[in-house]
Amino acid sequence: MNSFGTLFRISIYGESHGKGVGVLIDGCPPGIPLTQQDFVADLNRRKPGKPGTTPRKEPDVPQIQSGIFKEKTTGAPIHIFFENTNTRSRDYDQQIHIPRPGHADFTAMKKYRGFHDHRGGGHFSGRLTLGIVAAGVIAKKIIQPVSVAAVLQEAGGTTDIEMAVQTALENGDSVGGLIECIAKNIPVGLGEPFFNSVESHLSHMIFSIPAIKGIEFGAGFKTASMKGSEHNDPIVNIEGQTATNHAGGINGGISNGNDLIFRVAVKPTSSISVGQRTINLKTGKMEELRIEGRHDACIALRVPPVIEAATAIVLADLMLINKGYRQI
Amino acid sequence: MNSFGTLFRISIYGESHGKGVGVLIDGCPPGIPLTQQDFVADLNRRKPGKPGTTPRKEPDVPQIQSGIFKEKTTGAPIHIFFENTNTRSRDYDQQIHIPRPGHADFTAMKKYRGFHDHRGGGHFSGRLTLGIVAAGVIAKKIIQPVSVAAVLQEAGGTTDIEMAVQTALENGDSVGGLIECIAKNIPVGLGEPFFNSVESHLSHMIFSIPAIKGIEFGAGFKTASMKGSEHNDPIVNIEGQTATNHAGGINGGISNGNDLIFRVAVKPTSSISVGQRTINLKTGKMEELRIEGRHDACIALRVPPVIEAATAIVLADLMLINKGYRQI
Amino acid sequence: MNSFGTLFRISIYGESHGKGVGVLIDGCPPGIPLTQQDFVADLNRRKPGKPGTTPRKEPDVPQIQSGIFKEKTTGAPIHIFFENTNTRSRDYDQQIHIPRPGHADFTAMKKYRGFHDHRGGGHFSGRLTLGIVAAGVIAKKIIQPVSVAAVLQEAGGTTDIEMAVQTALENGDSVGGLIECIAKNIPVGLGEPFFNSVESHLSHMIFSIPAIKGIEFGAGFKTASMKGSEHNDPIVNIEGQTATNHAGGINGGISNGNDLIFRVAVKPTSSISVGQRTINLKTGKMEELRIEGRHDACIALRVPPVIEAATAIVLADLMLINKGYRQI
Amino acid sequence: MNSFGTLFRISIYGESHGKGVGVLIDGCPPGIPLTQQDFVADLNRRKPGKPGTTPRKEPDVPQIQSGIFKEKTTGAPIHIFFENTNTRSRDYDQQIHIPRPGHADFTAMKKYRGFHDHRGGGHFSGRLTLGIVAAGVIAKKIIQPVSVAAVLQEAGGTTDIEMAVQTALENGDSVGGLIECIAKNIPVGLGEPFFNSVESHLSHMIFSIPAIKGIEFGAGFKTASMKGSEHNDPIVNIEGQTATNHAGGINGGISNGNDLIFRVAVKPTSSISVGQRTINLKTGKMEELRIEGRHDACIALRVPPVIEAATAIVLADLMLINKGYRQI
Repeated sequence: MNSFGTLFRISIYGESHGKGVGVLIDGCPPGIPLTQQDFVADLNRRKPGKPGTTPRKEPDVPQIQSGIFKEKTTGAPIHIFFENTNTRSRDYDQQIHIPRPGHADFTAMKKYRGFHDHRGGGHFSGRLTLGIVAAGVIAKKIIQPVSVAAVLQEAGGTTDIEMAVQTALENGDSVGGLIECIAKNIPVGLGEPFFNSVESHLSHMIFSIPAIKGIEFGAGFKTASMKGSEHNDPIVNIEGQTATNHAGGINGGISNGNDLIFRVAVKPTSSISVGQRTINLKTGKMEELRIEGRHDACIALRVPPVIEAATAIVLADLMLINKGYRQI
Repeated sequence: MNSFGTLFRISIYGESHGKGVGVLIDGCPPGIPLTQQDFVADLNRRKPGKPGTTPRKEPDVPQIQSGIFKEKTTGAPIHIFFENTNTRSRDYDQQIHIPRPGHADFTAMKKYRGFHDHRGGGHFSGRLTLGIVAAGVIAKKIIQPVSVAAVLQEAGGTTDIEMAVQTALENGDSVGGLIECIAKNIPVGLGEPFFNSVESHLSHMIFSIPAIKGIEFGAGFKTASMKGSEHNDPIVNIEGQTATNHAGGINGGISNGNDLIFRVAVKPTSSISVGQRTINLKTGKMEELRIEGRHDACIALRVPPVIEAATAIVLADLMLINKGYRQI
Repeated sequence: MNSFGTLFRISIYGESHGKGVGVLIDGCPPGIPLTQQDFVADLNRRKPGKPGTTPRKEPDVPQIQSGIFKEKTTGAPIHIFFENTNTRSRDYDQQIHIPRPGHADFTAMKKYRGFHDHRGGGHFSGRLTLGIVAAGVIAKKIIQPVSVAAVLQEAGGTTDIEMAVQTALENGDSVGGLIECIAKNIPVGLGEPFFNSVESHLSHMIFSIPAIKGIEFGAGFKTASMKGSEHNDPIVNIEGQTATNHAGGINGGISNGNDLIFRVAVKPTSSISVGQRTINLKTGKMEELRIEGRHDACIALRVPPVIEAATAIVLADLMLINKGYRQI
Repeated sequence: MNSFGTLFRISIYGESHGKGVGVLIDGCPPGIPLTQQDFVADLNRRKPGKPGTTPRKEPDVPQIQSGIFKEKTTGAPIHIFFENTNTRSRDYDQQIHIPRPGHADFTAMKKYRGFHDHRGGGHFSGRLTLGIVAAGVIAKKIIQPVSVAAVLQEAGGTTDIEMAVQTALENGDSVGGLIECIAKNIPVGLGEPFFNSVESHLSHMIFSIPAIKGIEFGAGFKTASMKGSEHNDPIVNIEGQTATNHAGGINGGISNGNDLIFRVAVKPTSSISVGQRTINLKTGKMEELRIEGRHDACIALRVPPVIEAATAIVLADLMLINKGYRQI
């Protein structure tokens, strides 16, 4: 079930060490200007290169293969392909019986009965998020003037993110991170009760991004210890603007016109060179595993553009749906 | 979009002060024993009656109107209706121009252009969760031997929940709460990458429940400040059992056979008798609003059976889907 | 999978001899006037009473249980229930092992492993179409000024329908029929390539109606023996009006603004009192079966309002979708 | 809405004169052997080359870009791309204001407001069916031992198909055709009432294929003039085998274990060099249009492998769904 959305719908495919990864975007309205150049900024933000990110280098050139004519969207599906160029040829078959803790190795092995492409995480690789970022570039155009911005606020429990990453690198370890995302200029009325609330639709999409382990809207988990008199946001004008924004811009699952605010927890990268215990599925014996090779010490560094894209995709879909439901 | 699920699919409808609320359950396998009696326990857990819950009394008798024959499911859709019997006839029309902070009044007014049934929250009422609990009773039978248990762990920031509720009641205020849910005996392999991970499917459903503002799986938001060497769960046997369970029973979006664990934050009930500021949409002037009448001081008290039901519904759907995908 | 539609979505349930049948309508825009009276005309057209239709008498009063407030749609789901009042208590259990030719008895028995409600066809009964007709009443309001009209053109191979029915009645036999449906004032642009063409969406819905065995659009099966120079409809003005309408109002799966025209074949009622051969599933022996009791000699007499309703439902859905896809 | 299916789901994209066309296949069970060689036979049957088909020559090599590992399906999405190599560079812009009768030119122009890629039919081109044929190759493996065979029975109203095509070629005209499709070894129980009957699911898919204008199951349109005593198929053994097969292998929307039989009408190719009247959308004046260049005199010649593929895709989906619904 590699598709998401109702009217604005994306499907992703590909593997870490296969021919490439891609995305198919269906339901994009016609007439939106789009060139390869539009993808550069967000794809670069997702790319490794900074300290703490994997040294795997990929050009990540988006090959647009359909749905664009005379540099504008046509209304037909847009297919974008990213070639894999920097896949190392190791003997991955030795590893298949030793599931890496934190990874999908064990679950994929069982679910797909050993037929999955396990090289570098295969279809479970974070590389698949390239397609989400690419679709997000288009979604961001659809939702204008709504703007979306996600920022890494903490890593390893500190706001000195650089230091946290440096320490992790020195120890061959990794750290998690906390990202906040804010969308501005949201119209009132997005979200479809009961089961397609803004939170439902957004969390569904966000939890598809590898390594996300929590999401909270507005005051989030703090609301559990708040009083109603503290939490309720006073409505201060007829546009629905509120004095505070504990609701994160959503009431009853519907956008209320204030900023949409949510935070997500990103777990530490599972691949670490510190020794870990795991089982050898063939021998049934415990082994100590040290994962050498290329990996991110803090994957959260690269996640903000993915969160932004995911948010824009969800908002684009909710906007098209909401438009459909207006009285004829 | 009042339906949820792919193969096991529920649809809910109704209003707080209309004729009633109901649920339509499609995709239930045939041959499962089911009588009205099966619904009593979970419906009672959701009912008010304890201190801190609304004094509105409803018998909540499930009227099963289809899909059952000789006390067994037939494979056809099961429709269950709950009559509203205790709706007070006040003049709700006076209130429609004064949106209650924290409620869906303002967003519903804008989205539905004033045509919505606003009495007691209308279609946004927590009363709609009756249908979820009823569907959960059936789902719990489908997923056997998987068991699901949700518990309120904190209210208003303390584990002395009784005291927190008592204080709120005395002050005409309300408090939020923190609920943990654990599902045991989960088979390995549930969840469908990329967009129907267990977390995606479950959070989608959970955020449809009114008042939920956050969800986290396993170590959740703590993972943001953890190191990989702390977070990764060592795999200790060939069934995939792990020494710790920071992953909450999910790797790569797929159940790994360990307990499924997640926590949700429930915001404080929006209806409080403490004075609140809001706008009069007709006059454009600020007003102070005190909400008298029946309401829950801590809605979180009644949410655990809803969380359990939602979880069982999601697991039932993921199980049917997973079964469908096995090699023919 | 008892639901149909993307934005305007209906779900039906119930059994012929259970408590009743019903329909849940989701995605209806708010503000549409609707009262019980609106349903009378179409429900009456579907009712038996004319010669050739079953003598089973049901009041078929639509109980609207949600989604309406102050006699207007609210935007929330509309639930309509029809009680069964005239179900005869026979010993249906004797019959379960003797599948009636032409009916779903054998297939239901196998698919649901004997747990289905087999009384009077159970969930397979034509009585389920009550919900389609009711939803169609609402859909017809949504699609205005589009109008839909279906007419029985032939029965038993003749346009003298009365005679055909009379002969069938005299012989304890039944006859099939041919229905033509025309929708006028259709806007250009409905239908979503590639897989939601007008023909796709419409045929999907139409073949859900029991007893339909064929559908053709415009010149239909005649096109198989036509030449392109005969078949192509000359376009005569910039509104896209065509001199002929062999296309039935659809090009490339999209409505072209001319009348939407299609025809459906309705098979003869399967229940006949003429002797038929079938197998006794218990004994494995052939038996001769004569079906006495209430049934329609020509079910096609009652199908036109169902076809109209189905068409209106499909058009309502396609209209909402098309509106959603317009440039923002 | 370029996707079809519930568990076995295909999405197609591309344009006649763009970079290529492709298909994304989601929900294929793991472990099915698959190589490029498997596609040759069906792709060749769809290729032009015979008299009466377009002289456009394309190698149509399927580039498998994901979802296959060690020559077996992995359970992850399979993406297959077909490059366009033989696209002629004409000045298509001259033509955009002169819609060709029978084509989607006018409807696409209106629906996509002129932003569509109109070259050679763009996204509406029959070339898109390459993706359906490719997905069908995989579906045929999934549904084994079910076999599907479609045959062109008539063209231009005669069984002397060669002659009909020859005459059309000589006259610069085109002819339609009639195709029959039979699937054997179908298990009892496929199809999901009410709205996913075998006929519903299949007709939805079949009408997505360009040029199809009618479909009928079993005795089809003949049933309209039949008597029940003629039409009902006597059941002759406990496996549900019937003496005749007027039902086309389906009762109550569910497969009954007999051969699945249906026929489709294919309209004559719209592109003909005979003069046709149409409107110039810019000048508002009638023009006579003669379409020169490459086109099929009888597109029905190339449709049988597409019908087979569509049928296999539908059956694969219905099989996975049916498996999901079996009692746990």
